Parts: sequence; structure tokens; C-alpha cells
Amino acid sequence: MKDKITEHSIRLFEKKGFKETSIQDIVDSMGVTKGTFYYYFSSKEELLMDIHLGYIDNLLEKQRHIVETNSSYKEKLFETVFLLISNIKVQGSAAKIFFREMKNLNEKRLALIVPKRNEFRFTIENLLKEGIEKGEFRANLNISIITFGILGAANWSYQWFNPNGTLTDREVAEVFVEMILEGIQSV
Amino acid sequence: MKDKITEHSIRLFEKKGFKETSIQDIVDSMGVTKGTFYYYFSSKEELLMDIHLGYIDNLLEKQRHIVETNSSYKEKLFETVFLLISNIKVQGSAAKIFFREMKNLNEKRLALIVPKRNEFRFTIENLLKEGIEKGEFRANLNISIITFGILGAANWSYQWFNPNGTLTDREVAEVFVEMILEGIQSV
Repeated sequence: MKDKITEHSIRLFEKKGFKETSIQDIVDSMGVTKGTFYYYFSSKEELLMDIHLGYIDNLLEKQRHIVETNSSYKEKLFETVFLLISNIKVQGSAAKIFFREMKNLNEKRLALIVPKRNEFRFTIENLLKEGIEKGEFRANLNISIITFGILGAANWSYQWFNPNGTLTDREVAEVFVEMILEGIQSV
Repeated sequence: MKDKITEHSIRLFEKKGFKETSIQDIVDSMGVTKGTFYYYFSSKEELLMDIHLGYIDNLLEKQRHIVETNSSYKEKLFETVFLLISNIKVQGSAAKIFFREMKNLNEKRLALIVPKRNEFRFTIENLLKEGIEKGEFRANLNISIITFGILGAANWSYQWFNPNGTLTDREVAEVFVEMILEGIQSV
């Protein structure tokens, strides 16, 4: 039931926005009472926090797996970009809430989410740093800005990527990583 | 006075969100009456539309200038990325509203904004296409996906770029365009 409440809420938050969706809207959409909601969540904010935590914890776990199981740093980079785009495909609505509704978390809750978001970013920075040491990437890179560029290209796909379009999530990741690794100028 | 209302509203919308800000909040922050507001805008939605139009029209005008005045396609690309990042620096609050609050425009208003957003993107696609024809960019590029990647890297900076940080908007654009043109792998 908890998962069902979360699912229904994600759909409503995406469509109407977090602030505009009431607990009454959520329970009405499921045909249950407010009591059911309050059995699992103390407030709408706690539910939003739960969605955020679920999203980032899932990403961090998959990122750990990528870093551990791939030997080349180029592969680790590709799998990371692919993870972000495929996650938007699988969890499109949750992704939109993750990017759009962070402003509705209070400071105490942000203090739990922001370090996790940063961890994902720092792991990419480390991956680039170690890839430079191994000679896979150029030595003179501004690692932190490049990381923001990679995250930007991948995360922005939540704005436009259509899972039913002509390209798959893997093909989009391939185009991006080829651009990031090889550049687009003619040689 | 119209500009002053717009300025104050942008600041309030950024802080509290569009839906959560009332016309009363706006006029209170300026020490004027609702009559003043309604002299210039028929509704809060019209004001939001005005902010969106102002933002995208300004970008399109600057983009036209870039395309006309630079001879190399690499320069046109650099200036476009720099435009997006510097615009976030100059118009940070308006940029956040432009990216976050589009969902609050009705269909009729979206029908005026979306083609302008698309125009900005298509101009980048054209720039890449012509750059390929001139031999500046590689021939086998997926132009539309690369364009989304470039827009993503640049636009995402509204989430993290700090105009008072160690790097200027121009330096960030230089790091991004070097990555986009040359790639990060060692050669």
C-alpha cells in the first residue's frame, strides 16, 4: 500500500505540481481514506522526502555497481551517462519531481538529500581524476566543470527524451559519450 | 512601473514559486495597490507570459546577432554557449522562472512560447549542419541529439553556476566548448 500511495502521488505531483496536490486528491485517486495515508506518512512533505530519497539512493546504488564492475574509465563514464538517461526513461515522473520539487523540502530534509546528490557528482569527478591518472583522459581538464557539463547533458534529457522516439536511451548515451570523449570538430 | 512590477514579481516567484505568490504579495512588496498591478497586467498569468516572452525574445535577438557576426562555426558555437551561461548570470532569477514555471502557462500561451524555444534549438542545429558542410565539424554527427547535449550542458548551469565563484561565465563556456569540440580522451 505504501508503494501504491507513492506511485499515485508521483503521478499527481507531476501533473498538478506538489503544492497544488492535496492529500485528499491523493486518497481520492486511490479510493481510500486519509487514515490510510496517515498510517504510512505523517505529512505530504514526508512523502515528498521519501520520493527524493528513493530516487537518489537507487541512483547511488547503481553508480556504485558501475564503478566496481567496469575496468576502463571510459566504460564507467558511458555507463554513468546511460544510467542517468535510462533512469529518466524508467522513472520519468519521479525524475521530474526530483528535479523540480526540491524547493519544497525544508532545511532539515535538504540536509539529508543534498549530500547524496553531491556524492553522485563527486563520484564522477573521481572517475575523471582516476581516468586521467590511468592515461585515458587528457591531463589538463577542469574536472569539476567538465562533471557539471556531463551531468547537464544527461540530466537535461528529462526535458526532452521520449522513450517512444526514434532513438533508445542507449543510443542517446552513445551519441553523448562520443561527443564527450572525441569532440565534434573534424580532425 | 511595468518593469518594476516585473522585477519584483521575478524575485518573489523565484523565492516562493509562481502559484504560491499572490498579486497581493507583489503589490505589498512594492507598497502600491492592486489597481496599479491591473493597470499593466490583466492577470498573474499574463505577467508570467510577459517574463517568458522577454526572456526568450532577448535570447533569440542575441543569437541572431551571433550567427550574423561570427564567421567561423566554432566561434558561433562558443558564443552561443557563452550567451546561455552569461544570461543565467545576468538574469538568474528570470532564468529559473523560465525553466521551472512553464507548466503554469495555458495552451494558448504555450503555443506562442514553444515555437520560440524551438527556434533557438533549430538555429543551433543549423549552425552544426553548416559547420559540417564547411568542414569544421565531423560529418557523422547526430545533429539533433548533439544539440540537446550542448543545450543541456549550458542550461543546466542555472542549477549550479555561481557568478561570484572562482570561474567567470566566459571561463565556464571555454571549458564546455573545449570539451564539445575536442573531447576529453587523451590522444
